[in-house]
Amino acid sequence: MTSTARNATAEFLGTAFLLMAVVGSGMMAEALAGGNVALALLAVILATGTVLVALILTFQPISGAHFNPAVTVALATQREIRWSAVPVYIVAQCGGALAGVALAHAMFGKAVVQVSTHPRSGATQLLSEFIATFGLLMVVWGCARSRPGAVPFAVGAYITAACWFTASTCFANPAVTLARLFTNTFTGIRPADALGFVAMQFAGALAATALFRWLSGAPLVKDGEK
Amino acid sequence: MTSTARNATAEFLGTAFLLMAVVGSGMMAEALAGGNVALALLAVILATGTVLVALILTFQPISGAHFNPAVTVALATQREIRWSAVPVYIVAQCGGALAGVALAHAMFGKAVVQVSTHPRSGATQLLSEFIATFGLLMVVWGCARSRPGAVPFAVGAYITAACWFTASTCFANPAVTLARLFTNTFTGIRPADALGFVAMQFAGALAATALFRWLSGAPLVKDGEK
Amino acid sequence: MTSTARNATAEFLGTAFLLMAVVGSGMMAEALAGGNVALALLAVILATGTVLVALILTFQPISGAHFNPAVTVALATQREIRWSAVPVYIVAQCGGALAGVALAHAMFGKAVVQVSTHPRSGATQLLSEFIATFGLLMVVWGCARSRPGAVPFAVGAYITAACWFTASTCFANPAVTLARLFTNTFTGIRPADALGFVAMQFAGALAATALFRWLSGAPLVKDGEK
Amino acid sequence: MTSTARNATAEFLGTAFLLMAVVGSGMMAEALAGGNVALALLAVILATGTVLVALILTFQPISGAHFNPAVTVALATQREIRWSAVPVYIVAQCGGALAGVALAHAMFGKAVVQVSTHPRSGATQLLSEFIATFGLLMVVWGCARSRPGAVPFAVGAYITAACWFTASTCFANPAVTLARLFTNTFTGIRPADALGFVAMQFAGALAATALFRWLSGAPLVKDGEK
Repeated sequence: MTSTARNATAEFLGTAFLLMAVVGSGMMAEALAGGNVALALLAVILATGTVLVALILTFQPISGAHFNPAVTVALATQREIRWSAVPVYIVAQCGGALAGVALAHAMFGKAVVQVSTHPRSGATQLLSEFIATFGLLMVVWGCARSRPGAVPFAVGAYITAACWFTASTCFANPAVTLARLFTNTFTGIRPADALGFVAMQFAGALAATALFRWLSGAPLVKDGEK
Repeated sequence: MTSTARNATAEFLGTAFLLMAVVGSGMMAEALAGGNVALALLAVILATGTVLVALILTFQPISGAHFNPAVTVALATQREIRWSAVPVYIVAQCGGALAGVALAHAMFGKAVVQVSTHPRSGATQLLSEFIATFGLLMVVWGCARSRPGAVPFAVGAYITAACWFTASTCFANPAVTLARLFTNTFTGIRPADALGFVAMQFAGALAATALFRWLSGAPLVKDGEK
Repeated sequence: MTSTARNATAEFLGTAFLLMAVVGSGMMAEALAGGNVALALLAVILATGTVLVALILTFQPISGAHFNPAVTVALATQREIRWSAVPVYIVAQCGGALAGVALAHAMFGKAVVQVSTHPRSGATQLLSEFIATFGLLMVVWGCARSRPGAVPFAVGAYITAACWFTASTCFANPAVTLARLFTNTFTGIRPADALGFVAMQFAGALAATALFRWLSGAPLVKDGEK
Repeated sequence: MTSTARNATAEFLGTAFLLMAVVGSGMMAEALAGGNVALALLAVILATGTVLVALILTFQPISGAHFNPAVTVALATQREIRWSAVPVYIVAQCGGALAGVALAHAMFGKAVVQVSTHPRSGATQLLSEFIATFGLLMVVWGCARSRPGAVPFAVGAYITAACWFTASTCFANPAVTLARLFTNTFTGIRPADALGFVAMQFAGALAATALFRWLSGAPLVKDGEK
C-alpha cells in the first residue's frame, strides 16, 4: 500500500482511539463518580494521558502520530512534513475523531449522533486553549529535535498536566474539538464555542513554533523532507 | 530445562499475577471505597496497568509475555511463534489465571472457588470487547515491529486507558475472562456472558492483525521463526 | 541567538509552565473536589509531577532544565554551570514563575495579582522543606552522574512522592516559593513564611551536594565547564 | 571513601526516604482524606511507587539500590553481592528505615518514637506477604538479568500494584516491617505481628530465587563477583 494510505490509516485509527478514550471515559466516570466532578475528571485525564502514550508509541514510526491538525500544520511550516500531505492528514484526523465519538456512544448504548449543549465560552477559555496548545508544541519541538523516543512520554505527561491546569481542561486539538461538538456528555462542547477554540489552538501552535525557530536560530529540521 | 517448560512457567506465573492484581485489587477497593464505584475502579485500573508494566518487563525476554490466548493466536498467524507452541501457551495462561484467582481469594480470606453472578451482557458489552482487543493488538503490532522495548509501557498504558473508556472495563483476554467466571466479587463475570466476550476478543485480535498485515504490505515478521 | 538568551528563555518558559501547573491545578481541583482536600491535593500532585517530566524532557537539552535557583546554585558549586551564568538563570526562573502565576489567575478569571494569606509556619514546615530539597538534589546528583536521560523521570517521580510525604507538600524551590506568595488560592504561602522556606531549601540543596561530593571522593563533575 | 561506606550510605539514605514516603504520606493522607480509606491508601501507594522509581534510579549505580534485607540475602545466594557485605547492607537498611520513620514523625509534629497498635495478623496476612515478596524477587530476577535499566520502573510498578492486590498492602521488606513497628499511624504494624511478616518475606524471596535459578538452569549471575 502507498505511504499516503498508510499515514492516513494510522492518523485515522490513532485519533479514533484518542476520542474513544476522552468521550468513553467521560461517560464511564460520570456514571460512576456519584457527582464528584474532580473524581470524574481524574478518570478522563488518566485515560487521555495513558492512551496518548500508547498511541504515539504505536503510530509514531508510521505517520509520526500527530492526531492533531494544529500539530500537522505546525510541523509543515518547518518542513517536517510536506504541505501536500497536510490535507490527507487533517481529513484522516477529523474522520477518525468523529468515528471515535460515534463508537464511544455505541459502546455505552447512547445515541450515536448527538450535539453538545455544554457551554465553554469566554476569554478565559480562549486564553486557556492558546496556552494549552502553545505548551503542547513547545514540548513537541523541544523533544522532537533531540530525543524523538521521548515524545510519547513527554506528550502524555504534558497533556495529563494541562488537563488539570488549564481552565478549558486542555482540548488543544482542532480535530478533538470538532468531534466533541457531537457528544452531549461530560466532555462535549457547544458548537457556538468551537470556532474560537480552534482559532486559539492554531495560534498557540504557530506561536510556539515561531519561538522555537527563533530559539534554534534556524529551521527546526534539516532542509530536506523526511 | 527445556524452552517449552520455561515458556509455560513464565506464562503461568505472569497470568497468575495479572489475575491476582485484577481480582485482589477489586476486593481491596470494594472493601475500602465506601460505595464509590469510580474510586474502586480507579484502584483496580491502577493495579492492572502497573502490574502489566512490571510483568511484561519481567517475562518478555523469556516467553514474550503474552499472558493472553488472543495475543498468542494472533502472533501465531504471523509466525511470531510456532503453532505447535500455542496449546502449551494457552493451557499455561488459563491455568495461571485460575490459580491467580484462587490465590487472590485465599489472600483475602474468601472461599477459594466461587462462581460469579455479575451480568455483563448485551451488544454494547460485545462491541466494547471487540474494540478493546482490537486496540490491544494494534498497540502490540505497532510497537513490536519497531521498538519492542516500549511494549511493556505501551501495553500498560493502553490497558489503563481502555479500562476507563470501554463499557465492559476491558477484559480483552480470554484467559482473564475464563478466570473471572470464578470470582463472585467486584471484577467477576457471569458464566452465561463469557462465551460472547471470548468470541469478540479473538475477533478483535484477528481484525487488528489483518489490518496491520495490510498496512505493512507483508507478513509482520520475517519468514523464519524466532 | 546567544546561548545566554537561549538558556534564559528555556528557564523562563519551563518555570512559567511549572507554576501554571501548580497554581492552575490548585484552582481547578479546589473548585471541583467538593471540599475533599486529599482529592484536591492528588490533582495538584499529578499535574506537578507530570508537567515536570514533560518540561525536563523538553528543556534539558537547552538549559539543563533547572527551573529552580537552589538547583542552579548547587550545580554551580560543583562547576556544572558557570557562576557567571547563575544570575541570569535565577532572574529567568523567578520571572517565569511570577508570569506563570499571573497566567494561571488569568486562565481562571481571577485577579492577576494577589497576595497569599495561607500560613505555612513552624519548625515542622522548615524541616519538611530541608528534607524535600535535600532529597531533590540527592536524586539530581545520583542520576545526573550516571544516567542523565533518566533525570526527567526521576525528578518527576520524586516530586510526586515528596508532595505527599512532606508536611509542607514539597515546595523545594525558591522561585516557586516566591511566586506562590502571589496567589491567594489553595497553593499559596503567606509572605511572612517564605523566607524560612527559601533558607531551608538552599540549606537542603547544599547539604545533599556536600554529601554526594564526599560520596564520590571528588568534584562531582569533570574539572572543566561544559 | 571506601566502597563499603559508599554502599552503606546509599542504602541508609534510600531506605530512609522510602520510609519517609510510606509513613509520611500515610499521615498526610489520613489527615486529609476525611475517613475515606481507599483514597488514603491511594495516596500512600502513589508516594511509595514513585519514590521507589526515583530512589532506585538514584542509588542503583552506587549500591544496587536494594533497600531491603530480603533482596540483599536473595542476591547473595546467587553471588550477586558478597556474603561479607550482607551485614553492612542490612544494618544500613534497618538504620535508615528507623531514621526515616523518626523524620516522618518530626515533619508532621508527632512524637518521634512510637509503637504501633495496628493488628495485621492471621494466615491471610502471612500468605499475602509470601506472595508479595515472591513477586518482588520475580520481577527483580526477571529484569536484572536482561535489562537492568528497567529495574527502577519494574519495581516501582510492581509495588504500586501489589499494595492494592495483597491483603497486607505489601510490606515485602523486613527493614520496612521493623521500622513500621515504630509508628502508631495509618501505616504501622503491631510488634506481635512483625516476626511472621519477616519470616514470610524471606521465604517468598528465596522461593522466587530458587524458581528463577531453576528456570535459567544455572546460577543467575556469572560465577565471579561484581
